[in-house]
Amino acid sequence: MNNDKKNIAVVGVGLIGGSFALQCRSKGLADKIIGVDFNPMHAEQALSLNLVDEMMDLAAAVSQVDLIILAIPVDNIISILPSILNLVEKQVVIDLGSTKSLLSETIKNHPKRGRFVAVHPMWGTEYSGPSAAVAGAFEEKSVILCDLDESDEDAVNYAKYLFGELRMRIFEMGAQDHDLHAAYVSHISHLSSFALANTVLEKEKEDHAIFEMASAGFESTVRLAKSNPDMWTPIFKQNKDNILDVLNEHIMQLKKFKSCLEKENWEYLHELIENANQIRRIIH
Amino acid sequence: MNNDKKNIAVVGVGLIGGSFALQCRSKGLADKIIGVDFNPMHAEQALSLNLVDEMMDLAAAVSQVDLIILAIPVDNIISILPSILNLVEKQVVIDLGSTKSLLSETIKNHPKRGRFVAVHPMWGTEYSGPSAAVAGAFEEKSVILCDLDESDEDAVNYAKYLFGELRMRIFEMGAQDHDLHAAYVSHISHLSSFALANTVLEKEKEDHAIFEMASAGFESTVRLAKSNPDMWTPIFKQNKDNILDVLNEHIMQLKKFKSCLEKENWEYLHELIENANQIRRIIH
Repeated sequence: MNNDKKNIAVVGVGLIGGSFALQCRSKGLADKIIGVDFNPMHAEQALSLNLVDEMMDLAAAVSQVDLIILAIPVDNIISILPSILNLVEKQVVIDLGSTKSLLSETIKNHPKRGRFVAVHPMWGTEYSGPSAAVAGAFEEKSVILCDLDESDEDAVNYAKYLFGELRMRIFEMGAQDHDLHAAYVSHISHLSSFALANTVLEKEKEDHAIFEMASAGFESTVRLAKSNPDMWTPIFKQNKDNILDVLNEHIMQLKKFKSCLEKENWEYLHELIENANQIRRIIH
Repeated sequence: MNNDKKNIAVVGVGLIGGSFALQCRSKGLADKIIGVDFNPMHAEQALSLNLVDEMMDLAAAVSQVDLIILAIPVDNIISILPSILNLVEKQVVIDLGSTKSLLSETIKNHPKRGRFVAVHPMWGTEYSGPSAAVAGAFEEKSVILCDLDESDEDAVNYAKYLFGELRMRIFEMGAQDHDLHAAYVSHISHLSSFALANTVLEKEKEDHAIFEMASAGFESTVRLAKSNPDMWTPIFKQNKDNILDVLNEHIMQLKKFKSCLEKENWEYLHELIENANQIRRIIH
């Protein structure tokens, strides 16, 4: 596949698919963008928001495009990808999901495996649906391309070209490494945020005024708690083992703080905070 | 005390005190702003950044001003406030600390208790020192005025005028209620962030590439982990009991997620996330 403008099918015209469509258009990468969505309301919104040129059913869209983008929850990617690959000739299929190991395993022996490239752009917001699509998304963010030795050379080259044009920082790794890393730098943040929201909402039942004081710091740590359960439940399901490892470590770290408080060990508490400050090396 | 322009002493010319000084000047509330800081480097920075008109020692500053603002760590507020009140005649003293119960208890019987107003502006960033001062801080944020029946009427009226002019949303409550609420909507967010940073930094020891993928979501949940240990250790110390309550609840909420993962109870996991989504009512 060369680097000419493409006809692109975007399966799932929500936050990720809609933002991807907007960027492809603004970067001049798309000739025509066809949306596919099983939710009729989302289909209508995607058209009225001009995210896509037209909506079509999946089989019709696949037959008319060069590139098929999967921007649907990760359980749907797994159930739909094999049948899409059955329909594919020379087209390239790219998913934008947050987990890769199970997906990689599922299509490992598919005769058209080479036409697929597994991709995880490290961008998102806590909102969902076509109206959540953001112009200028993905730029200067990281993107992980997984198991590239399983994909055909022309498909890999096009994927690198595409995400380069979207001005993303490209990393390559195996699906298992990806899922481990994603658990630490994305999935646990969401889990922590969900649990923090539930912690405070629980208190609100007996104390309605609890949120009047909510500060910017609080907002920052709980904003991810607004994220879509239909998207996140399958991520937690597929990446269960890695997330459990991180979650156990996180609970252990919280218990260190708990023990400092209980034992009034302020010196060690100060040390724990100083250690946490090292995150400055990473996040500026 | 009337609402004329004031000579103001800002004790602690860091993130909070420096930002407060900038806002008082830009709102035309200050005639002269005198800085007090025990750290000579901060004193120098505050002058060169024009946060204050001059630096002075505490006793000299108190004798020359109408209003004394305490913007230092909460343990220092407790150790310094009684001696400041000893020096005070008609001046008003206001602290901007994050905990109130112990402070309130400490000065309860001081003959000049009425000249003091306990205030907590719900604003801050993860940075510290004079160079962290931000113009436009505090605006549209909440501010809590505590135990107002312990303060003289003119001092209360001036405090309400001052924070109204700074365009803050004023709430009134008792010191104990304040500390409970602050534990839920501010202190636990910091604790969670510190622990999350330590969780990932621990993993980084064996896997240096862990942060290459760090996403905006991750940044959002750990940015507070950069906060100053000298400021936060005394907050945790003074609000120990409330913070332990919230922390125990938070660990319990995390364990609900853990149990869902272990038992593969995806339906309940979905419910937990749906429940967390209710935070949308609060944070838009």
